Amino acid sequence: MHFEREQLIRFSHCDPAGIVFFPQYFVMFNGLVEDWFDDGLGLGYANVVVQRRVGLPTVALKCDFQLPSRMGERVRLRLALQRLGRSSITLALECRRGDEVRVRLQQVLVTTALDSGRPIAIPDDVRAAIERFELAVDAPAASVGERR
Amino acid sequence: MHFEREQLIRFSHCDPAGIVFFPQYFVMFNGLVEDWFDDGLGLGYANVVVQRRVGLPTVALKCDFQLPSRMGERVRLRLALQRLGRSSITLALECRRGDEVRVRLQQVLVTTALDSGRPIAIPDDVRAAIERFELAVDAPAASVGERR
Amino acid sequence: MHFEREQLIRFSHCDPAGIVFFPQYFVMFNGLVEDWFDDGLGLGYANVVVQRRVGLPTVALKCDFQLPSRMGERVRLRLALQRLGRSSITLALECRRGDEVRVRLQQVLVTTALDSGRPIAIPDDVRAAIERFELAVDAPAASVGERR
Amino acid sequence: MHFEREQLIRFSHCDPAGIVFFPQYFVMFNGLVEDWFDDGLGLGYANVVVQRRVGLPTVALKCDFQLPSRMGERVRLRLALQRLGRSSITLALECRRGDEVRVRLQQVLVTTALDSGRPIAIPDDVRAAIERFELAVDAPAASVGERR
Repeated sequence: MHFEREQLIRFSHCDPAGIVFFPQYFVMFNGLVEDWFDDGLGLGYANVVVQRRVGLPTVALKCDFQLPSRMGERVRLRLALQRLGRSSITLALECRRGDEVRVRLQQVLVTTALDSGRPIAIPDDVRAAIERFELAVDAPAASVGERR
Repeated sequence: MHFEREQLIRFSHCDPAGIVFFPQYFVMFNGLVEDWFDDGLGLGYANVVVQRRVGLPTVALKCDFQLPSRMGERVRLRLALQRLGRSSITLALECRRGDEVRVRLQQVLVTTALDSGRPIAIPDDVRAAIERFELAVDAPAASVGERR
Repeated sequence: MHFEREQLIRFSHCDPAGIVFFPQYFVMFNGLVEDWFDDGLGLGYANVVVQRRVGLPTVALKCDFQLPSRMGERVRLRLALQRLGRSSITLALECRRGDEVRVRLQQVLVTTALDSGRPIAIPDDVRAAIERFELAVDAPAASVGERR
Repeated sequence: MHFEREQLIRFSHCDPAGIVFFPQYFVMFNGLVEDWFDDGLGLGYANVVVQRRVGLPTVALKCDFQLPSRMGERVRLRLALQRLGRSSITLALECRRGDEVRVRLQQVLVTTALDSGRPIAIPDDVRAAIERFELAVDAPAASVGERR
């Protein structure tokens, strides 16, 4: 199961070589995680972070930038869950254009108390929503366009 | 041998949790690589990129964010060479405050023709400058404060 | 006549006070101008900038930040033409949430040769497309949702 | 009396035309205001914002971008006080290279309670520090390099 959306490469993403300046990919993928919380998990990212004061900092990432992306291209950003720990969420992220993989990324987030920064167990409803998202892949009749 | 400098954590680096938003670290480390070219290697980063049209895109990175950094802190950014390939430069990068490691990063850059994006061999003078920088570590009498 | 779209306020737009860091508004409005070129004028922003090498730098702006915007809010960004000069385009831009005006901005862009940075007359097809966009407002039967 | 410092134009500031992307100027000037609080006023910007929870949002600005700045240039950023209100601080800001003015900006900040966003009177010690900074200009024997 994965979650994905289109992303337009904008002028503000690009560097003097006319290609995406790589830190901007992390900003885009951060937006994808927000959209996953909003639309894929139905949790409301801002509600989790602002009202419930749950932080989701990144603690580790591994990234390959295989091909550059250029201004005006419409790429696809894709997210799949790799592992769900007690307080960590490991994601496999990709930026593609058609069959061409541009960027491949593994990113580990942890749930924290936003104000102290201390790790906390993933809240029950967040865990349940992620498990439901995962289970969808095993449902034989599923016809979600985004299935692998 | 390593190259390092101080970095003030600014308001613009920080997120709603009051800590550095992680893509900003990559912007800071990009600045450190520029300063290494300018001050550590004596090459002039802007001259290499703008006049000579040599690109230095990042093709891979691995990163651990061990502890957060907060607005107003003065951290140290540190760069050491790990490997010099035909067209790739592998760097070990760190952000520390005192003995505390905040971020540890391995980043692989490649030299490219800026306009086509194609990899090129590391230009001779760039390679020579990096080798000189490395050799400094073997000089027995060296007393550079920045030696490991 | 105006052009508008919704904008989600994301984590990456916000500062340690939990509100949009003001330079991020200019990045958002830059995206709105791109979308206006793509969808309002039918010109293809990236085509104009990248293939035709026409730059659109900002030469002046006046801005009032009336109320803050917070993470998770869906605001509306709105663009209207104020003046079309020989090589300048003056835009009135707004960020609103419902009836509440958050930001009001006047921004002057000029068309330039991207590589030299020198001002050039607005290309004929760009001028024609902007004039068509403007004339739409006088059509009595127009029922565009975005009319004032 | 003004406060100023050098700023290197970095790769990360520049757009596909190889010049500073204008929102980056506001990030740079924000850094200048921080340095003014730290070094010009002796107040500690992070202390004011983080410990004392005083916000300094921008409520208005007027800006002329007269000439572009390019990667690798060392420009000077300069700040002068224009007006001190009950809760507002109006600054005249400039980016120059030698005698060449690149950007001229008037920016109005207000002091707020960081958590509520409501305007508050400028705290007494902040007002006193700004007044001392201003008075320096009238001292006949002053020989600060940065005097007008």
